[in-house]
Amino acid sequence: MPELAEAEARRRFTAARVARLATVDEAGRPHQVPVVCVTVSAEGTGAADRIVTAVDHKPKTTARLKRLRNIAAHPAVCLLADAYDEDWDHLWWVRADGEASVLTPGAADPAVRQAHARAVGLLCAKYPQYRDDPPAGPVIAVTVRRWSGWQARAEPSGRRTPCTPVVPETHEE
Amino acid sequence: MPELAEAEARRRFTAARVARLATVDEAGRPHQVPVVCVTVSAEGTGAADRIVTAVDHKPKTTARLKRLRNIAAHPAVCLLADAYDEDWDHLWWVRADGEASVLTPGAADPAVRQAHARAVGLLCAKYPQYRDDPPAGPVIAVTVRRWSGWQARAEPSGRRTPCTPVVPETHEE
Repeated sequence: MPELAEAEARRRFTAARVARLATVDEAGRPHQVPVVCVTVSAEGTGAADRIVTAVDHKPKTTARLKRLRNIAAHPAVCLLADAYDEDWDHLWWVRADGEASVLTPGAADPAVRQAHARAVGLLCAKYPQYRDDPPAGPVIAVTVRRWSGWQARAEPSGRRTPCTPVVPETHEE
Repeated sequence: MPELAEAEARRRFTAARVARLATVDEAGRPHQVPVVCVTVSAEGTGAADRIVTAVDHKPKTTARLKRLRNIAAHPAVCLLADAYDEDWDHLWWVRADGEASVLTPGAADPAVRQAHARAVGLLCAKYPQYRDDPPAGPVIAVTVRRWSGWQARAEPSGRRTPCTPVVPETHEE
């Protein structure tokens, strides 16, 4: 069965080290950029999962990034993680479709500032590369509407990719 | 300088084994799927480069794929190839923005049938996985409007990723 169950899609996405963020610009054209991100699980809360990613200090040509302008125009986004292998029996991908909002570090609303700080904390926990220099720019927070995924064929039972635990929504820094 | 020159972006994209195709659906939402693809160079012809990818025999849940419906509604697409590395100094990505059309294998127009057969031939030449079982479904052909790319920092001179040669537009099967 090529389709991945939602829980397995979510697990694989959460374990991935990189994903691609697709947005749509003002003219209706798609745009993609690779991002590092963390899944914030809403398990047991009745809310939707969230995925957070930050505009960080990796060199950029402009601070006014196209991904942020696009989200302001069209909040619908798509995040994709995939595994390529020359043995095409091992191919798989997982996708999170949802709506994005932008959390700015210096927002007037204390709840936004707190959500920003929490997202940065989770990113630093997953990526040691951030620990000495946490991302200082806006955070993109995606509320996941749908998890989906595909694999070329079922893995033999017992064979599992190592898994980064999903961070529970109630996790505190 | 973090931006990659167009020629270098094109070279890296062409060498990549996998890319992500982003399309936009009828409702204006982005969609992504990983694809194998070949760059068909228009160098010296005055025309634009093309990228071709096929709907192949990898197991699908439906033949009426969302990517094809999306292209029918919105021909603007984006293709992204990237390299993730835990050493973030080695990160890079390249992107091709363009317009897609769909070539069906049984089209009435002989030029479309010929372009389809040529794309399948190029895909089989790049991917040995296809040689015993060439892709039989529609081909997505993207006319590249813009190549762009980014790298975390310049590579030391002399250090180069092995390169799959760009297939010239005039290449014959």
